[in-house]
Amino acid sequence: MADQKKMVESITSMDVDFAQWYTDVVKKAELVDYAPVRGCMIVRPYGCAIWENIQKILDEKFKATGHENVMMPLFIPESLLQKEKDHVEGFAPEVAWVTTGGAEQLSERLCVRPTSETLFCDHFAHVVHSYRDLPKLYNQWCSVVRWEKTTRPFLRTMEFWWQEGHTVHETAEEAQAETRQQLEVYAEVCEKYLAIPVIRGRKTDKEKFAGAEETYTVEAMMHDGKALQSATSHYFGDGFAKAFDITFQGRDNQLHHPYETSWGMSTRIIGAIIMTHGDDNGLVLPPAVAPIQVIIIPVAQHKPGVLEKAEELRQKLSAFCRVKTDVSDNSPGWKYAEYEMKGVPLRLEIGPRDIEAGQCVLARRDNREKTIVKLDELETKIPELLQAVHDGLYERALKNRQNRTFTATTFEEMKRLASEESGFIETMWCGDLECEMKVKEEAGLTSRCMPDEQKHIGDVCPICGKPAKHSIIWGKAY
Amino acid sequence: MADQKKMVESITSMDVDFAQWYTDVVKKAELVDYAPVRGCMIVRPYGCAIWENIQKILDEKFKATGHENVMMPLFIPESLLQKEKDHVEGFAPEVAWVTTGGAEQLSERLCVRPTSETLFCDHFAHVVHSYRDLPKLYNQWCSVVRWEKTTRPFLRTMEFWWQEGHTVHETAEEAQAETRQQLEVYAEVCEKYLAIPVIRGRKTDKEKFAGAEETYTVEAMMHDGKALQSATSHYFGDGFAKAFDITFQGRDNQLHHPYETSWGMSTRIIGAIIMTHGDDNGLVLPPAVAPIQVIIIPVAQHKPGVLEKAEELRQKLSAFCRVKTDVSDNSPGWKYAEYEMKGVPLRLEIGPRDIEAGQCVLARRDNREKTIVKLDELETKIPELLQAVHDGLYERALKNRQNRTFTATTFEEMKRLASEESGFIETMWCGDLECEMKVKEEAGLTSRCMPDEQKHIGDVCPICGKPAKHSIIWGKAY
Repeated sequence: MADQKKMVESITSMDVDFAQWYTDVVKKAELVDYAPVRGCMIVRPYGCAIWENIQKILDEKFKATGHENVMMPLFIPESLLQKEKDHVEGFAPEVAWVTTGGAEQLSERLCVRPTSETLFCDHFAHVVHSYRDLPKLYNQWCSVVRWEKTTRPFLRTMEFWWQEGHTVHETAEEAQAETRQQLEVYAEVCEKYLAIPVIRGRKTDKEKFAGAEETYTVEAMMHDGKALQSATSHYFGDGFAKAFDITFQGRDNQLHHPYETSWGMSTRIIGAIIMTHGDDNGLVLPPAVAPIQVIIIPVAQHKPGVLEKAEELRQKLSAFCRVKTDVSDNSPGWKYAEYEMKGVPLRLEIGPRDIEAGQCVLARRDNREKTIVKLDELETKIPELLQAVHDGLYERALKNRQNRTFTATTFEEMKRLASEESGFIETMWCGDLECEMKVKEEAGLTSRCMPDEQKHIGDVCPICGKPAKHSIIWGKAY
Repeated sequence: MADQKKMVESITSMDVDFAQWYTDVVKKAELVDYAPVRGCMIVRPYGCAIWENIQKILDEKFKATGHENVMMPLFIPESLLQKEKDHVEGFAPEVAWVTTGGAEQLSERLCVRPTSETLFCDHFAHVVHSYRDLPKLYNQWCSVVRWEKTTRPFLRTMEFWWQEGHTVHETAEEAQAETRQQLEVYAEVCEKYLAIPVIRGRKTDKEKFAGAEETYTVEAMMHDGKALQSATSHYFGDGFAKAFDITFQGRDNQLHHPYETSWGMSTRIIGAIIMTHGDDNGLVLPPAVAPIQVIIIPVAQHKPGVLEKAEELRQKLSAFCRVKTDVSDNSPGWKYAEYEMKGVPLRLEIGPRDIEAGQCVLARRDNREKTIVKLDELETKIPELLQAVHDGLYERALKNRQNRTFTATTFEEMKRLASEESGFIETMWCGDLECEMKVKEEAGLTSRCMPDEQKHIGDVCPICGKPAKHSIIWGKAY
């Protein structure tokens, strides 16, 4: 118990200092290490295993809908980055520039990709000639670099890992449908695999991606009421195609510009998992992406037969879940705390008396509920309990969002809510940038999205009093 | 037939110009596109799918032997790169330097990783404290950059993709065993999956990795007799650990430096696959990594029932192999040539008469042998034929290597063979750098390795006449 207490005491309580709690968890759960370059991170095996599980889920879904992976270069020549005006304005201030190669001073600077639209467009111009070449549905897994001033592991780092999908289509309708389809993939992954409820919606012009006609987003609420943009999907119209001179011969034998999309989810989502589900004992992982779903802890392991039984169970369980046994000579209490810190969804305790009775104890990470289970029922009970953990996490996160979502019909109310509460504030909006800026300046809130599920909260924009066009969600964001 | 001829004529024959044949194949089989940055490549979906299959095989083998994946940063501060003297000497001349981040001129240049020993060492220094922390068996999948003057797709590009394993151990023996174990993984993957016979051996001091005590290699011979280093595995002793001040408390309660290894296989191996197995009709892919293992070509597809049967077969086959049906309106002849170019191991032809007879034709890509197979025997015949293609490719490659491997006992003979033949030349060697340099200058050959299977070809070094220490293999290399 002393051991356990020591570990638990070593993280800051989330109610005392949420930011410090977050930093403590990423370090103590061994997700990351700091890199020798400021603002970069090393993703350690446990963090990497979570990302690999997320990758696998996404990659299968992308492939099932006809997408193919490609590998694009790391470098973008400065002249290529500059081809699309809005895009370069958005990204040029935050890129890293390579100016020297070997001993040679380069005649043109190369930027380390902050995102790869320009590279994909240049490639599409080579490979798209006829409507028969369309669509091209591509994705790549890679890291990108953005020169950030303030960084935090997973949430904002100079280098981060992601997938970026890039597609090119014959018609605007097809490209729009792709944009929405991929947003729905992200929403499904967040909700059904990561147990993170999300709001699907559209970004305002101010908040959309540099160069996009429309940006769609899935927005999640963290435990502290702040928003985290969990993935985005962009519709480009034919803007990039025109800038990069991508043309194809259409069914009418005329030359046309195709329509493009891009969409991405990054290692930020691990930050979202931590801040949605974690508690004062550490990480709490959704079972679908937990590197270890069940940790077996032998109790009184020096007694005859205990380690053997633990190993026998591990082998049996490995047929249907990701399981590990901790046979180290640390105390059971130390081990309980250790795997709670690491967010393992289920703990299986087995000692001499359990063995005699042909049973074991299963403890849920999310609500600490313990169940005594017959050993010959594990095959059905464990999947049930993993599902229960998932559902429990989802429900708790949804309830947190519901409790922290407010509506306002006057600007005074918005400002009061913004200062007194931490959460989402839903209002009507006229659609003008001016009002959006005013909300930022006077209430410290940014627009998260105009949700797909539009609400009628009133007829006018609470900021300017003009007729309202949309309902919109405001919040403070990571 | 006109179509087919047109496609086949469009690649250069390998006997006329092997280099041009190679370039033609990588373009026509749609493996790569040229990138906007000189010397970089875009790996297109078909090339990427081959790499993903190789990745999957390697990743499973690494994990089965206890290795864990991590993600390390892209950038290395100049001061960190300089910590190990031999290492920096080897790599500094060929790295890309980031000097500007956003608008800010950096106070210290960052190099884009050419390899990540320095980053892993810095991290090991943070996480290794006690013998209980050892070993750490890490791997990462990423791209690295080396500023090359002359580049060719897959074989030598400024940016390439690879995995780099980095491990740290309590004892020299353990680290040495790891180095050899991983070399054997590479050898097995080359031989049992890629159908590329390899020679396992040790590099000379001149050819070893910058900073390594020993470099082990698997060397393959390409169709034209030139060598391709297919993967390497390095033993570092405690040199890096000393340079980076990695220490651990040993079982004796004293501080010790641990022992390290690294090992890697890269997208170069796709070049090896192309040049080992390809022919004048294009790519020939080993079944284990072919994105499409069986291509179904409907014959007279406008006739009733043909497309339905082709689709029925595709569904049936997809349970046990990677299969695709080409239902486009191109002629069967055009399709035959197209999938030969793409190296698909087996072609399944099915037309109205076949359907009536309850059979189909299976054509092997490697030797063009055709077999008539009953439709209800496909489940056993296809795996058999895929294995036969693998075996056929391996045997042909082995025979090529045997035919092009020569032994020499005098320097005159070495020089004559080097000028008249293209292949491996095996001789004895005294072990002196001076003789190795002389072979390079006068015969134009580099040492490939001192093979594990040492031969007794004579007692003296044919270059200097001093007593021989090793048998060694010389060649011209990609």
